[in-house]
Amino acid sequence: MASTMTTKDGKPFDRSALEGLMRRRLFYTPAFDIYGGVSGLYDYGPPGCALTNNIVDIWRKHFVLKENMLEVDCTMLTPYEVLKTSGHVDKFADWMCKDPKTGEIFRADHLVEEVLEARLRGDKEARGQKVEEKEDDPKKKKKKVKTIAVVKLDDGVAQEYEEVLAKIDNYNGEELGGLMKKYDIRNPANNGELEPPVAFNLMFQTTIGPSANAPGYLRPETAQGQFLNFAKLLEFNQQSMPFASASIGKSFRNEISPRAGLLRVREFLMAEIEHFVDPEGGKKHPRFDEVKDVELELLNREVQLAGKTQVETTKIGKAVETGLVDNETLGYFLARIQLFLLRIGVDKKKIRFRQHMANEMAHYAADCWDAELLTSYGWIECVGCADRSAYDLTVHMKKTGAPLMVREPRKEPLKIEEWQIDVEKKKFGPKFKKDGKTVEAAIEALSQELREKLSLDLEKEGKIVIDVPGVGDGKVEVPKELITIEKRTRVENTREYTPNVIEPSFGIGRIVYALCEHIYWTREKDEARGVLSFPPTVAPTKVLIVPLSSHTDFKPFVRTLGDKLQDIGVSSRVDDSGASIGKRYSRNDELGTPLGITIDFQSVKDNTFTLRERDSTDQVRASLDEICKAISNLVNGTEQWADISARLPKFEGQEVD
Amino acid sequence: MASTMTTKDGKPFDRSALEGLMRRRLFYTPAFDIYGGVSGLYDYGPPGCALTNNIVDIWRKHFVLKENMLEVDCTMLTPYEVLKTSGHVDKFADWMCKDPKTGEIFRADHLVEEVLEARLRGDKEARGQKVEEKEDDPKKKKKKVKTIAVVKLDDGVAQEYEEVLAKIDNYNGEELGGLMKKYDIRNPANNGELEPPVAFNLMFQTTIGPSANAPGYLRPETAQGQFLNFAKLLEFNQQSMPFASASIGKSFRNEISPRAGLLRVREFLMAEIEHFVDPEGGKKHPRFDEVKDVELELLNREVQLAGKTQVETTKIGKAVETGLVDNETLGYFLARIQLFLLRIGVDKKKIRFRQHMANEMAHYAADCWDAELLTSYGWIECVGCADRSAYDLTVHMKKTGAPLMVREPRKEPLKIEEWQIDVEKKKFGPKFKKDGKTVEAAIEALSQELREKLSLDLEKEGKIVIDVPGVGDGKVEVPKELITIEKRTRVENTREYTPNVIEPSFGIGRIVYALCEHIYWTREKDEARGVLSFPPTVAPTKVLIVPLSSHTDFKPFVRTLGDKLQDIGVSSRVDDSGASIGKRYSRNDELGTPLGITIDFQSVKDNTFTLRERDSTDQVRASLDEICKAISNLVNGTEQWADISARLPKFEGQEVD
Repeated sequence: MASTMTTKDGKPFDRSALEGLMRRRLFYTPAFDIYGGVSGLYDYGPPGCALTNNIVDIWRKHFVLKENMLEVDCTMLTPYEVLKTSGHVDKFADWMCKDPKTGEIFRADHLVEEVLEARLRGDKEARGQKVEEKEDDPKKKKKKVKTIAVVKLDDGVAQEYEEVLAKIDNYNGEELGGLMKKYDIRNPANNGELEPPVAFNLMFQTTIGPSANAPGYLRPETAQGQFLNFAKLLEFNQQSMPFASASIGKSFRNEISPRAGLLRVREFLMAEIEHFVDPEGGKKHPRFDEVKDVELELLNREVQLAGKTQVETTKIGKAVETGLVDNETLGYFLARIQLFLLRIGVDKKKIRFRQHMANEMAHYAADCWDAELLTSYGWIECVGCADRSAYDLTVHMKKTGAPLMVREPRKEPLKIEEWQIDVEKKKFGPKFKKDGKTVEAAIEALSQELREKLSLDLEKEGKIVIDVPGVGDGKVEVPKELITIEKRTRVENTREYTPNVIEPSFGIGRIVYALCEHIYWTREKDEARGVLSFPPTVAPTKVLIVPLSSHTDFKPFVRTLGDKLQDIGVSSRVDDSGASIGKRYSRNDELGTPLGITIDFQSVKDNTFTLRERDSTDQVRASLDEICKAISNLVNGTEQWADISARLPKFEGQEVD
Repeated sequence: MASTMTTKDGKPFDRSALEGLMRRRLFYTPAFDIYGGVSGLYDYGPPGCALTNNIVDIWRKHFVLKENMLEVDCTMLTPYEVLKTSGHVDKFADWMCKDPKTGEIFRADHLVEEVLEARLRGDKEARGQKVEEKEDDPKKKKKKVKTIAVVKLDDGVAQEYEEVLAKIDNYNGEELGGLMKKYDIRNPANNGELEPPVAFNLMFQTTIGPSANAPGYLRPETAQGQFLNFAKLLEFNQQSMPFASASIGKSFRNEISPRAGLLRVREFLMAEIEHFVDPEGGKKHPRFDEVKDVELELLNREVQLAGKTQVETTKIGKAVETGLVDNETLGYFLARIQLFLLRIGVDKKKIRFRQHMANEMAHYAADCWDAELLTSYGWIECVGCADRSAYDLTVHMKKTGAPLMVREPRKEPLKIEEWQIDVEKKKFGPKFKKDGKTVEAAIEALSQELREKLSLDLEKEGKIVIDVPGVGDGKVEVPKELITIEKRTRVENTREYTPNVIEPSFGIGRIVYALCEHIYWTREKDEARGVLSFPPTVAPTKVLIVPLSSHTDFKPFVRTLGDKLQDIGVSSRVDDSGASIGKRYSRNDELGTPLGITIDFQSVKDNTFTLRERDSTDQVRASLDEICKAISNLVNGTEQWADISARLPKFEGQEVD
């Protein structure tokens, strides 16, 4: 599972350099930093905020606009009853154990994982093997278990540890407690014994309104709001199925002890789709054909349970055909997720889809695949794609009585042969008096099997005897004058069903971070400064405007260019500092600004400008209008730099890098 | 203050019809409706969500992009210490009083207001005056005080009531308690006596992390995150002042008893700007000239305190000149706010700017103007524009020691004449031994006045005597060999100051609702169906595609049109139901869809289509490309319908309305 990350150009990836850059250039910063910070809470500064907005914008076009999804915006505050019904109050928890002496709290699975891994490293060293500099998994508290006791383990024990680690996500609290006992896992800091794991609910609790009896939570996902509005959304969609709703918004998880930068946070932006589909007919998707040849790297459940991590490159059409991926709709979204990730610049070689193991799945899921991105923290779940079956709609309907279901006319009326019972209501009253209703209800509740048997009794004995608890001695005789039992055909013209839900759920913050790792590199001649090669559609700022010097002749051009770019909706930044042009460009490489316009003395003469591309540092020269058109096309994604440099004159008059 | 709303075309405005439309067409819906709902929480359905997104998008272009503001996205979860320092823990509260018998809770100011108003209505009726059907203020619980006792009041009492009402926002808890006693205000439902008002903090409280000792709140405004990051933002801005940060996100207020639809909610979208400006030099704004001739309707503090509501139409340049509006930066934003509101379609005649009275202002504000929009609930604060002075940066700096200030080189060095003291450090040790440092510190702390006096002592007596508590008997003699006191000139090249903050703060949900009231109307021939005349830039869906019938010939055109519009980023909706074309258009009038494309048999023949405009129902006919170009221009705001209908051939072949 260990993996040494490399940059796109094959050099070793330096995480601390990237994180340093991202903090220095204010992509993000620890929230409440001047108050000492709060772990798991981060603020996005201007470049991080713009980057996120751009990615959300592309997400909206790629999913919502493309398929006419019904985007909604539901509240984060959620009353207790809703999350009690959905199962989150009882089951949305991690296992934590406490050191009773120090009060320190550990997340049980992370602790087991890091202690066993530390022992395995010690074992390897004792055997004289090279210990690979293992990059930390974000789920681990990396700083706790630093020192490795160099102790050789029995071969069998080492093997056992490896197997436990391969399915670490598969254990419940009791099992984790068992592992801790069996392997004598303690507080790594002081070797103190820990209390057995207890469930810690991950929702933030609060009170809604001035009285204390209205408890509520901050939502742990945007999904519930979409489910609760299902009936209204179906009506908005003119009763037409299938359809999807979508929501982009913040959700909250009160992580026990988050430490992995932007990868494990307590407040995060999610983009979630709930695609509602008829459970009958194999959950087909009308656009599946468009994606069936998309190739994905799939890591299935069985491989993982065997303690392995080997992926298989598979066309999604094939994967659905063989049943590896359960159905077309699930498969459709896996492919669309990959296409989205590629569109924003994620490295194709660093994407895989991993199927969840049974115990790992959320309480509502019937099947689930994660899109994982390779980062220096290991493979990270960035998009989950779960089949939630009819779970949520069913429980909310049962609790509230609201019709969270589809009623549709059947193309072919359904004919059902069944035993029907008619009672002579007029005679029932006089015979059974006050018990009439009870007896009638008992008859109504009889099963088809019983009805068939009773019809024979009625024919043979002229009466039936049925159980009616609470009436007389619990047995009631009904004579044939009062009742008819016949096999008849009933015709149903309407079909009712609860849709199943396929849910692609995107952790935008994780995607943003993983993307930055994928597109970060350094130039040969300036290793100290990084370059972030965002595609122009995604880059926080699109254009850097650089006047050659602070000469007053350049000033009106700076303004004209800025206004012109603003008119076409392109964000720009001016750098008119005294630094060399090369230095100014290199500063903006760190912000990932893909394009630069230089204003020089030639510009003053003939109103032409040079346009520079970040990655190649190639330049072209053209008129203001042509430059602006090129920029507009690059930013909208309708042209690539290769197109621009082919059609506009190359500029080599000046070395600016 | 009462005002009868009319629609744009001068008919009486019918709120229940609009609210019915908005709920029916899923602009919004009570959150958790199937669970009985939670007051003050609403979900936005597809049209409401798209409308909000479009308005936010325009906001971002109008403010952030236009002025290169630094947009940030900070966390909502906020630790206790931050909001304790900002003053929110102590002061962000409303006054509530409880009925001790029923447990019912009232917001004190709203209760006083509604009871006095009810009595005034009763008084008018008793005097035989016509009682104007007063539209409710959103701050009031409209359903509580329905029945008006028809009782004539003394003239003096009626007058007193009017005066109290005019400054109802100006009372604190004790004063409200006094009014309740004086006017015998009780629970309107059962006439029960109420407990005196107590403060109820409006922030939602929670706990961050697994241990109970990390209390936190949901932020009541996005501002604090921006202030805490001030030093980093200033650095990002290359130390250049003035600059603004901006943030768009949800905030939370635990309202005591919210009842006014979208106007008083517990969770809401805010867009806030923090413009940091040098407090010296009159808080000038570099772009003030661009807006100085914008005319605003201003309602100042004095007029309100006199119990009146008369506005004055004033050019903002004039208002700043006369001091009515305190400074250029405040004035600049008031004008820009109005321009934004007009840009999204708000009715100019229904905007006014009201200055806060002293007690009404938030605890941090030095001056504040609200942009209020006229709705059927009365004049509603939709944008606040406060001068928060240096309050926030100062308190956070004091608490944390972080340098939330600007250091900048002075253009002219500052020369300061002052008494300076030099000590002979080498001789201090031997003379004072262990007390050396203490004595030195005491000398360092001497005031300018004392230094001047001591310089005379030194000259006259060859020594000075100073107070040094804790050394010897508290008096220490320093001989002239150890010390020099001289008047010298010190030159300061750097200036340090804490910026002031001008904060335009937008309640997006309120703006959305008020806008809907402003642009709602009904057609003469179909009063039952409303029209929402959103500008094309703002409308949730831009184009309705209507095939003449379900004829299969039309199907490929529907698809081509949809794809083509998607390519140019325009959202469309198809209505191929069996309803008449007129009916289909009229259904979409309710969604505010500004444009419609009809596909008819002519389209099949020559690939031309009709384009219909919602408000005029006028149509033009042109080729696919021309129609798409026209749509693109209308949606981007670069052309108006008048331009389109002038340049494309009018189509009158078919009456579709």
